[in-house]
Amino acid sequence: MTTVGILGGGQLARMMALSAAPLGLRFLVMDTVADACAGQFAPLIVGDWRDEAALSEFASKVDVVTFDFENVPAESAQWLAERVPVFPSPRALAVAQDRLAEKTLFCELGIPVPPFAAVDSREGLEQAVATIGTPCILKTRRLGYDGKGQFRLRSDADIGAAWDALGAQAPKVGLILEGFVAFERELSVVAVRGRDGEFRPWSLTENWHVDGVLSASLAPARVEPELQAAAFRHARQLAKALDYVGVFALELFCRNGELLANELAPRVHNSGHWSIEGAETSQFQNHLRAVLGLPLGDTRNLGHACMLNWIGEMPDAGAVLGEAGGHWHDYGKSPRAGRKVGHATLRSDSQAELADALVRVGAALGREAQVAPVVERLRGR
Amino acid sequence: MTTVGILGGGQLARMMALSAAPLGLRFLVMDTVADACAGQFAPLIVGDWRDEAALSEFASKVDVVTFDFENVPAESAQWLAERVPVFPSPRALAVAQDRLAEKTLFCELGIPVPPFAAVDSREGLEQAVATIGTPCILKTRRLGYDGKGQFRLRSDADIGAAWDALGAQAPKVGLILEGFVAFERELSVVAVRGRDGEFRPWSLTENWHVDGVLSASLAPARVEPELQAAAFRHARQLAKALDYVGVFALELFCRNGELLANELAPRVHNSGHWSIEGAETSQFQNHLRAVLGLPLGDTRNLGHACMLNWIGEMPDAGAVLGEAGGHWHDYGKSPRAGRKVGHATLRSDSQAELADALVRVGAALGREAQVAPVVERLRGR
Repeated sequence: MTTVGILGGGQLARMMALSAAPLGLRFLVMDTVADACAGQFAPLIVGDWRDEAALSEFASKVDVVTFDFENVPAESAQWLAERVPVFPSPRALAVAQDRLAEKTLFCELGIPVPPFAAVDSREGLEQAVATIGTPCILKTRRLGYDGKGQFRLRSDADIGAAWDALGAQAPKVGLILEGFVAFERELSVVAVRGRDGEFRPWSLTENWHVDGVLSASLAPARVEPELQAAAFRHARQLAKALDYVGVFALELFCRNGELLANELAPRVHNSGHWSIEGAETSQFQNHLRAVLGLPLGDTRNLGHACMLNWIGEMPDAGAVLGEAGGHWHDYGKSPRAGRKVGHATLRSDSQAELADALVRVGAALGREAQVAPVVERLRGR
Repeated sequence: MTTVGILGGGQLARMMALSAAPLGLRFLVMDTVADACAGQFAPLIVGDWRDEAALSEFASKVDVVTFDFENVPAESAQWLAERVPVFPSPRALAVAQDRLAEKTLFCELGIPVPPFAAVDSREGLEQAVATIGTPCILKTRRLGYDGKGQFRLRSDADIGAAWDALGAQAPKVGLILEGFVAFERELSVVAVRGRDGEFRPWSLTENWHVDGVLSASLAPARVEPELQAAAFRHARQLAKALDYVGVFALELFCRNGELLANELAPRVHNSGHWSIEGAETSQFQNHLRAVLGLPLGDTRNLGHACMLNWIGEMPDAGAVLGEAGGHWHDYGKSPRAGRKVGHATLRSDSQAELADALVRVGAALGREAQVAPVVERLRGR
C-alpha cells in the first residue's frame, strides 16, 4: 500500500487525507507542532523543517511526498527529493516561494502583471516608488501569505513607515514593491496537472478578501467565457513552464475586463475548497491522483457553490446544516484570532436558490456583510 | 470536541470517519482485530466485545457510541448504554439482530413478509417445511450476514442436510425457516431518522447479489413512484416503531409488483455506498448527524449512480478513475476470498451515459457479468 508523506499538517493536509483515503492510500504528516489538525486523522511526525533526523525518518516511511504548506525551506524539499519522489518539484516550489521569481516568470510567459520592482535598500525603495507610483504595496519576497509581510503605501510619505515595518527583513527574505491594482474583481484558477502533462482546471472562481484573508468564493465565477478562457490559458502555460505536477492556484485581478496575475500558490488552495461538494472531483482527490500518476478526475461543476471561510472561531453549525445544500467543515482546530478554523460550502442547482440560501445563512449567523458581495454578484446583471 | 465511539472497525466505520470528520468530530474505534481498516484513519482499541476492561476504556473516552457492526452482543451494547448515549438503541439493535423478532415486528406493522416459522428441533424443521413448502431457506436467527448461516432447501429431501448444516446452532442462536421468494427484483430503502423523529429516505435502490453477497446497486431504482412510496412507508413505520436513531436499510423483495420485507440492517449499508457521490448528503455523514442530534442533510440524488462491489481483491483502478463520473473506494484491506475489499461508484447525469460507462468498465475489467444486469435495467423498458 502506498504511503503519501505530506509536509505540513494543517487543514489542507487533513482534507487531502480525508478525500484521497478512498484511493487506498495511507498518509504520514510532518509538522512543526504536535497539535497539527491533520494529526487527528493521520500519523504525525513532529519536527523542524531543517531537522535532518525527522526528515530522514519521514523519508524512510513514505513512498512519495507532497505539501500542505509551501514555505517548507526549498533546501529541505530538495534534500527529500534526492531520497523519494516529491511533487510538485522543489524547483516549482522555489519559484512560487519567491514573489520576484514568480513575477519574472509571468512576464517571460507574456502573462500580464502589475508593475513590480525588487527592493533591497531604503534608497531602492524610494527609487521603486518613484517608478511605480502610489498607491503600491511593499511585500516580502518569500514567506508571506494571507496578507502577512505586506505594507501598503498610499503616498511617498509612507516610505519611512514601510521601511521601518519590513526593511529589517530585506537581507533575509528580500522585498518587492508592487503597484496597487484598483481591481474590480479577484479571481482564481485552481487547476491540476498530471505527471503526463494533462491539464484540468476547475471553473474560474471569484474571491472576496477581508483584511487580506479569503472570506468567500463563488464558483463558477460570473464572467464572460473569453475571460475564463484567458485565465485557463495563463494557468496552463505556467504549469507547463514549471513542469508542475499536482494542484495549484493562480490568483488574478480583473481590471477593466483585463486579467493581471497576482500570485501562484503551489498547492491545493482555499479558493478551491468548494470543489469538495461543488465539482465531480475535489481538488484534494485530484491533487493526490496527479501526485500518484493516476488518471485525473473530472473537474466539472455540480451546480453553483459558494464557500464561506470561518476565521478565528467556528460559528454555530445549525444554520448551514439546515440548508438543503449546506456542508460544514470544522478543521478541529482551537480558536485563535485570525486563524482559519473551518469553512462552509453552500451548493445549489441554481444561482437564485444559492443566493437565497446565502441570505438565510448570513442573517442567521449575523454575517450579512460576509455574504452580501456574493449575493449581489449572484443577483446582479 | 465531540468524540464518537464506533463499535466495529471495518469499512463502514472507516467511511463514517472520513465522511463525518468535517463535522468537527474525533473518532475512537473498537474492534476485535488490530488490523481493522478504520484504524488507518482513527485511533483503535482492540478487545473482545465482552471484554469489560476494553469496553470500559472505550466508554471513558467517547461522548456517544454507534455501530459499524450489528452483531455486537446486545448485552455489551446495553452495558455501554448505561454509561454513555448509544444510537441506535440497544433495543433496536436487539430486534434487528434476531430474524424472528424482526419478522414478527414486520407482521405487527402490517408490512408483508414471506412465510416464516421458528425452528428449534429437527421435528420442528419437518413441521415448518410441511407448512411453508419448498423451496425454502433455513437461517440462523442471529449472527448471519452476507448469506452466511443459511441453507437452501429445494425439496423435503434436503431436510436432513439442512439440519446437519445448521442444527447444532439451534440452541445458541436459534433458527428460522423462511419461504423462498421467487422475486423479480431486490430493492432496499436506506433511510435516516433523527433524534427528533425526522425521517429522510434516499431514493429506492435496486440491488443484485451474487452468492448471497451484494454485487451491484443502482439508484434511483427504475420503479413506479407508487412502489417507492410504499417502500418509504414501510421504512418510516419500522423506524418509528423502534424509535430508531441513525441510518438503517430495509431490504425488500419485489414479486408481481408487490413488496415483501426481507430484513432490517441497523446501520449504514452497502446498498447506500453510492450516496457518497450520488446524493447531496451521504449515508455516512447523515448517520453521524442523526446520532449527534444535528439537522439531517438533504438525501436527494445527484443524477444516477451505480455502485459495484469488489469482493476478494481490488481490480485495477485505471478503468474506473478514467471515467468522468468514476469514483474509487479501496478500503485498505488485504485481499481474502469473499471479503469486501472496496467498491466503485459511477455517477452520471443521465441513465444512458451511466449505462455506457458501465459497459466500458465491465469490458476493461473483464467483469461484463457484474455490470450486465444493471446495464439491462438502465437500457430496458
